[in-house]
Amino acid sequence: MLAPKRLLALLLTSLLLGVAHADEGMWTFDNLPLKQLRERYGFTPSQDWQTLAKHASLRLAQGCSASFVSANGLVMTNHHCSEPCLTQLSSPTRDYAANGFSAKREEEELKCPDVELNQLNSISDVTMRVNAATAGKLGSDLIKAQRAIASKIETECVGAAGANVRCDVVTLYEGGRYALYKYRRYQDVRLVFAPESAIADFGGDPDNFNFPRYCLDVTFMRAYVDGKPASTEYFKFDKAGPKAGELVFVVGNPGDSQRADSLAQLANLRANFLTPFASYESELRGVLWQYGNESAEHARQSHDERLYTENALKVFMGQLEALNDPDLLRAKEEADDRLRAWVKSDPKRAAKYGDPWSALSTIAQINAEILPRYLMLEEGLGFDTDLFPLARTLVRAPVERNKPDAERLPEYREANLPALQQSTFAAKPIYPEFDATKLAWSLEKLRQVLGADDPLVHKILGTDSPQTVAARLVNGSNLGDVAYRRQLWEGGANAIEASDDPVIKLARLVDPESRRFRKEHEDRVEAVVTKNSQLIAHAKFEREGTANYPDATFTLRLSYGVVKGWDEQGAPVPPFTNFAGLYARATGSAPFKLPQSWIDGKARLNLEAHYNLVSTNDVIGGNSGSPLIDREGHVVGLIFDGNIHSIGGNFIYDSRLNRAIAVDAAAIEESIRNMYGNAVLADELVAG
Amino acid sequence: MLAPKRLLALLLTSLLLGVAHADEGMWTFDNLPLKQLRERYGFTPSQDWQTLAKHASLRLAQGCSASFVSANGLVMTNHHCSEPCLTQLSSPTRDYAANGFSAKREEEELKCPDVELNQLNSISDVTMRVNAATAGKLGSDLIKAQRAIASKIETECVGAAGANVRCDVVTLYEGGRYALYKYRRYQDVRLVFAPESAIADFGGDPDNFNFPRYCLDVTFMRAYVDGKPASTEYFKFDKAGPKAGELVFVVGNPGDSQRADSLAQLANLRANFLTPFASYESELRGVLWQYGNESAEHARQSHDERLYTENALKVFMGQLEALNDPDLLRAKEEADDRLRAWVKSDPKRAAKYGDPWSALSTIAQINAEILPRYLMLEEGLGFDTDLFPLARTLVRAPVERNKPDAERLPEYREANLPALQQSTFAAKPIYPEFDATKLAWSLEKLRQVLGADDPLVHKILGTDSPQTVAARLVNGSNLGDVAYRRQLWEGGANAIEASDDPVIKLARLVDPESRRFRKEHEDRVEAVVTKNSQLIAHAKFEREGTANYPDATFTLRLSYGVVKGWDEQGAPVPPFTNFAGLYARATGSAPFKLPQSWIDGKARLNLEAHYNLVSTNDVIGGNSGSPLIDREGHVVGLIFDGNIHSIGGNFIYDSRLNRAIAVDAAAIEESIRNMYGNAVLADELVAG
Repeated sequence: MLAPKRLLALLLTSLLLGVAHADEGMWTFDNLPLKQLRERYGFTPSQDWQTLAKHASLRLAQGCSASFVSANGLVMTNHHCSEPCLTQLSSPTRDYAANGFSAKREEEELKCPDVELNQLNSISDVTMRVNAATAGKLGSDLIKAQRAIASKIETECVGAAGANVRCDVVTLYEGGRYALYKYRRYQDVRLVFAPESAIADFGGDPDNFNFPRYCLDVTFMRAYVDGKPASTEYFKFDKAGPKAGELVFVVGNPGDSQRADSLAQLANLRANFLTPFASYESELRGVLWQYGNESAEHARQSHDERLYTENALKVFMGQLEALNDPDLLRAKEEADDRLRAWVKSDPKRAAKYGDPWSALSTIAQINAEILPRYLMLEEGLGFDTDLFPLARTLVRAPVERNKPDAERLPEYREANLPALQQSTFAAKPIYPEFDATKLAWSLEKLRQVLGADDPLVHKILGTDSPQTVAARLVNGSNLGDVAYRRQLWEGGANAIEASDDPVIKLARLVDPESRRFRKEHEDRVEAVVTKNSQLIAHAKFEREGTANYPDATFTLRLSYGVVKGWDEQGAPVPPFTNFAGLYARATGSAPFKLPQSWIDGKARLNLEAHYNLVSTNDVIGGNSGSPLIDREGHVVGLIFDGNIHSIGGNFIYDSRLNRAIAVDAAAIEESIRNMYGNAVLADELVAG
Repeated sequence: MLAPKRLLALLLTSLLLGVAHADEGMWTFDNLPLKQLRERYGFTPSQDWQTLAKHASLRLAQGCSASFVSANGLVMTNHHCSEPCLTQLSSPTRDYAANGFSAKREEEELKCPDVELNQLNSISDVTMRVNAATAGKLGSDLIKAQRAIASKIETECVGAAGANVRCDVVTLYEGGRYALYKYRRYQDVRLVFAPESAIADFGGDPDNFNFPRYCLDVTFMRAYVDGKPASTEYFKFDKAGPKAGELVFVVGNPGDSQRADSLAQLANLRANFLTPFASYESELRGVLWQYGNESAEHARQSHDERLYTENALKVFMGQLEALNDPDLLRAKEEADDRLRAWVKSDPKRAAKYGDPWSALSTIAQINAEILPRYLMLEEGLGFDTDLFPLARTLVRAPVERNKPDAERLPEYREANLPALQQSTFAAKPIYPEFDATKLAWSLEKLRQVLGADDPLVHKILGTDSPQTVAARLVNGSNLGDVAYRRQLWEGGANAIEASDDPVIKLARLVDPESRRFRKEHEDRVEAVVTKNSQLIAHAKFEREGTANYPDATFTLRLSYGVVKGWDEQGAPVPPFTNFAGLYARATGSAPFKLPQSWIDGKARLNLEAHYNLVSTNDVIGGNSGSPLIDREGHVVGLIFDGNIHSIGGNFIYDSRLNRAIAVDAAAIEESIRNMYGNAVLADELVAG
């Protein structure tokens, strides 16, 4: 499945390379590919079409896409995007992730503890303001100035609107442009319908990123405002689904891509992110696999995290494969060389842009020194328990909130506090045995990376084993209790200082060094990347103009394409699967085991109905849950994955092979109505 | 610890690059660095010294080094090299790996089920014969011709001597030279002494490849001939150990190095071996970690494999780090370019050598296609149970033994059968739950790599889960019974065909496709590498002569160096640790927990005695267990590891940082006599 952003957010974003061709591109809504659409498909989206696409599309703040599909705030996204909500609402005796959920009346809908929806309102260009504030600055001055201007712009933008408005300053074209994205924020989001995970995720890890595919990867939620269903613009739902060859659009929020990165940045990505992450996630996957084998309850506790880990791992390994591919490396090197030669060939240009490529070639070495410790401490890879991020937030919040907004760590800015608070006070179950297992394992990783003789490691472990320390921390902590978290938040610095909660004490102990490495990383790496990739971006603008799309930034984009299969090593892959294929593929064993409802209900289904489909739309992680819409602006499908070739799409889009994977609208309506017998929901979908 | 060869044996070997400097080099005994030793250290080893070094040194056929240290066949090696023997001799109620073993009389010594020692007798040059047999051949013809000539030479060499003699044709300088190594073979090897693993491996994975270090990583065994201790040449044991700055030698069998590889070969290594292996071993480590946490018995069952996996993983990650280092990559590229330019600069040379670099640049792409399946099937990564290799051998043996020797897969040649038979009939315990766990996990990997729709995967799994299939295979198999294995071996093809043992049936099912991918790999990759790296080797000989050492080949080598610390980021690391440091470092928690004997016996030890030490000797995996000897030819230590910088030593030796790690002879004698009270053994060591 297309990865939600969580870990991937760490991957660097980047700059523009060459000119988009075929159906390539993740276009911003203030720079849609109107010319390409007209020339290739004879289609010009009307202003109404554009406005609807913008307003009926949604972002799940924690890393997915979604859309409104009825006037009453009905929201469609992927099952794998709602996994955290399903898991948080479940208990040992009531497993919504495994068994599904189906509400037929509003009163039955369940509030998701930690879902925030963002609906794009407007985009405005703030490039001049940001550039004026950061001009001539380097290193920590640059980071500081960037934060201050972003805080100022965001604060002005939110104004007196409060928690209902969210404003983000977004870096596009790696600093070639800055834009202000203003959103309507929804935090009361309730679960309406989810199928069983065995059908949502049919085929599991083996089928992930593959096609033919047979997943009902869909969940419906509903946005509420003041306790009532939100009244919203929405996409009409076309239960016929799309036809082969039909022009279709994906409107969603691709997370991060690196198509414009210089070769030096990609080498850094391979060496310092992907290689250690692939090992970390692989080992964690082994721990989760064996933990889940121990009992049904262990399997339930670890299910969400195992899915996430397996998916991340497939992405990391696929990206490593791409970044080890001699052809890709050569193409990137040649692109760098061409632009570099063009800059050098004119003395004025050479003076204006200098040699940003040389500057970028230093970051891999600097990262090799800083990053292992930064990831363990600041990104929390050394403290893999749900309690640590809560403790970290509670420890930092009073310190940061005491600073002027412009000087805070960005996640503590006023504009970001609503999301932070929701997450901090969400009622999420903690499973002590599971948490202690992950924490013990990750404390071992911490010791491995920092070294057994590191003073901080000594302070954390003392003379005890990671297992002993982890059990003491998890079992001794009250942070699983929302009331206690609220008490610490409201009590501020004094409450934190007085707390003898062991995980709070751990977060306090780690904080100085963690902040120090974050700052080192910002000043010595991020500032260098910002500065120099901005220079490259400006050189590209001068050479090519801006008739292209920026790398993905987890903001709303449009991609166009057609429903179309591809040739896999000479064998054609057709664009559609159907329900008959699902039944043919099912065995009695997970992940190919059907839920009982689908075994019992087979006769009620139209087996020839289209189930999943592929299209040439250009999607990456973050696009999960995006609506697939047609020329009319009607939903004809729901994106949930890309094929295996789409993983390398982070670096290069290959129109011959790269495909998006969607659930067909026909399959959604057919199964809700005939398999799950939820006519209320099916009717709402069809009626709008 | 320096990795035994097992998995590492897969890594490609290679060619000579540049000229050795400082204390670099793993020199063959027919080309010792006499000039360097004379010029730098004023030392010329006598013929007797050289002969003794050759005859008193040993190889453990399964992947370590060792030495004779008494006239009665007493053998010294590392504890981690004897782990398989210790584990195989143990049971749930008698754990020699954890609790150690100490025999004071011959009758108490225990026969290791599966240890073969090789004592080098002679080296002869067979380059002309091999070259004559393979001249002008390519692809499968080349592989076939190579095998035929090697079989012929080895068969002649063994002659009528039978199982006591082992002859190996060894490829040196990546085909620049071929040599015949003739060994005395010992298969009756008995355990004499092993300390507790908690002291042998003190510091565990966190300290592995680090220094300061505190490990008593030693085991003594004894070679027997006709039921009596072997009478052997041996190194005298100097219980004083070496001094700082003293000239010392390592005589041992480094496994595989890639110092002479072209950049294209290193890129292939990174992409197609190290990246997938690091992920595989990481995930397996996670499974083993959690399995071992489940109970003390699970910890015991998985101990040896966890050690091996953690060590392999550290090596793979370290090698990936090296192969992602821009400086190293640039140095390799420049070395390639220089030689290439030198070849091109002369039309006669250009005609003679052509462009082997271009040919080698194709192998990464070919491997990307072949290797994943090859590794799963032929290397058995998809069948991680101790039963599968036994089944594979039993299935293939009658087929291969029915062919002329020259046409067999090399491991089934007559010259190699004694080792194969020992391993096949060794009484090794099988732990069904552990085996089924690993097998289930690896069957999942098989499905992942081959794809859920692969016909072979369908045949293996049917409609069942990997867990169900693994349990059925392991619980239904009789292969844990040595008598049954012997019956199948002796019954030949008919017995195999009649067998309904499920693991035998699995091995038969897999065999055709497994052989097919092995052959593809041999013909399309190995033959290309052989041909073209030989061309590069010959070009280098023409340019530089042969005054250098070949890459490691798991054959006897001498390295020289001095006892010396290094500067770690500005901080000096002294060359010795002592017992006092061990006690200061100990905590109550594994892997820093002392065994009870060491807590109780502290007062009996000279705490100032040298314990571990570092020297500049050039060692890599396979050198584990090598004696460290002085100018007199006396043992002054026992190599068991390299520092973290030595991992990159597979590709480049850096004399400023690269260090070998040894147990000091003083610590060995002191602890055997005073901690373990085994005066008999201590006296034998001191007296010889």
